[in-house]
Amino acid sequence: MSELNDAGASFRQRLDSVATDIETLLGRLLDDTLLPEELARPRRLMDAMRHVALGGGKRLRPFLVVETAALFDGPRARALMAGAALECVHCYSLAHDDLPAMDNDDLRRGRPTAHKAFDEATAILAGDGLLTLAFDIMARPETHPNPAVRSELVLALARGAGLGGMVGGQMLDLAAEGRFDGGKIKKLAAADVKQLQAMKTGALLRFGCLAGAMLGEASTTQRTALDRYGSALGEAFQIADDLLDVEGDAATVGKATGKDAAVGKGTFVSVLGLDQAKARLNALVSEAEQALAPFGSSADVLKMAARFVAERKA
Amino acid sequence: MSELNDAGASFRQRLDSVATDIETLLGRLLDDTLLPEELARPRRLMDAMRHVALGGGKRLRPFLVVETAALFDGPRARALMAGAALECVHCYSLAHDDLPAMDNDDLRRGRPTAHKAFDEATAILAGDGLLTLAFDIMARPETHPNPAVRSELVLALARGAGLGGMVGGQMLDLAAEGRFDGGKIKKLAAADVKQLQAMKTGALLRFGCLAGAMLGEASTTQRTALDRYGSALGEAFQIADDLLDVEGDAATVGKATGKDAAVGKGTFVSVLGLDQAKARLNALVSEAEQALAPFGSSADVLKMAARFVAERKA
Repeated sequence: MSELNDAGASFRQRLDSVATDIETLLGRLLDDTLLPEELARPRRLMDAMRHVALGGGKRLRPFLVVETAALFDGPRARALMAGAALECVHCYSLAHDDLPAMDNDDLRRGRPTAHKAFDEATAILAGDGLLTLAFDIMARPETHPNPAVRSELVLALARGAGLGGMVGGQMLDLAAEGRFDGGKIKKLAAADVKQLQAMKTGALLRFGCLAGAMLGEASTTQRTALDRYGSALGEAFQIADDLLDVEGDAATVGKATGKDAAVGKGTFVSVLGLDQAKARLNALVSEAEQALAPFGSSADVLKMAARFVAERKA
Repeated sequence: MSELNDAGASFRQRLDSVATDIETLLGRLLDDTLLPEELARPRRLMDAMRHVALGGGKRLRPFLVVETAALFDGPRARALMAGAALECVHCYSLAHDDLPAMDNDDLRRGRPTAHKAFDEATAILAGDGLLTLAFDIMARPETHPNPAVRSELVLALARGAGLGGMVGGQMLDLAAEGRFDGGKIKKLAAADVKQLQAMKTGALLRFGCLAGAMLGEASTTQRTALDRYGSALGEAFQIADDLLDVEGDAATVGKATGKDAAVGKGTFVSVLGLDQAKARLNALVSEAEQALAPFGSSADVLKMAARFVAERKA
């Protein structure tokens, strides 16, 4: 059996193992005995933050942090801390995106969204609290003993999450829906869709891959390789998402499908067509795999991750 | 003329000078040429972030950072960076608190709030963007060349802004209004009001004072002194705010007064009574001044700041 097959066999196991560890760690980081005083614990806020951050998801972003960090033999506990920070950012963004003023979604992973399970004000604050907690976690000495590494992680996470990254991408997405032009859908060119998605979903996935390199105090060549990998993986993730919206089954995907097409949203499928989008997806998986060449067979699990992202059914 | 009088004479000037410098710096940090690419700049988001962060306010929090840092002769440019980061957190919290789902305010400093000037989705994202930018700014090498200091600042800011600080305090405040009990106002004890306010407004003011000590790599004694000062100043700030709500004039205060009493909110005035609240305010100013004793006359401006906070009319 080749090493790649070994990696394939163990891939799901490793993905699940990170998901389990992240769930445990986030549960510990959001333990309400950590609140300052008995007197006036904002328990409702803690409950809402736990609702948003716990209970599922593939935990793909932490997985990328853990597996890229493993290339440099860094302690798994540190990578899990950085992964938990990143997951807090991802989860906060879901809670805010689901709000009535944004995408107005009632369900997420088959459970009521935060503003449905609680209320709008609490959902907004839970998101704010998780975004803040992300930087708290990242700056803790447990994440890395070298403060220069912690500062670098904080800065890169902020860049990935902010105006030039995820939040900016979400704004562009709302604008593309014609939200600020009386519902007049914007015709996006392929380059615009690529840019929008690189910001909205790509930036955090890419950060996940770079975080491992930062934790491992990798060489410039190694960083560049992982950045190339993360960039290809991020775009592949989004194309796969767009394909699922067109071809997927709502029950399997866990959310409504056909929604993007219904709002006339510029997606990779709408601007490239189905066949070209699939071809681009395959090319990106190859690109991701090739980027990992410097790491040899130790990166086999990451290669499998690229394939998994492209071929996932949910 | 005593040195204290000199400080008094120059206090307003120094406060205004920090406000001017922070306005300039935030304008530079929110310059849209910084956005990643021409192709798809989320200009609306940048405009909203500028609307929220620029154009006024006393900039008291950055002032505290700059003046506490000055005790240790640190470069003003670094303190301004840390102060700008803190101000981003303060401004984001205003934008989110003003949202329809929260306090539903249309005006802030005499201008339309973010969701009025733009829309709800944009206001939420602008807040998210500013909170994220705060950590971006704090983690930059320009803020301090020592990454251990930057990490410490990030961690302390996150603690002040998060679940155990500002966001948690806002949640307690909404709960106290009876928001989650069908409008049934909670009767708060004086200790509850103190705890709530120490979290909601105190934590960031206190952080501002500690930030100067962190930037100056102060001794433990010096830190403890500035933390005591910040804690007293934070409570004084809130009592003064509650007094303004009762006794202030809406035109001078720049927002509706009598609002807290109208919703039956537990304030220092409502739990202590007017006379006791004023007595407590005076005691806190003395406490703040005494905490600064180790710094001698070099802390005169900070002493004036405590008096200013207590006696302000807006």
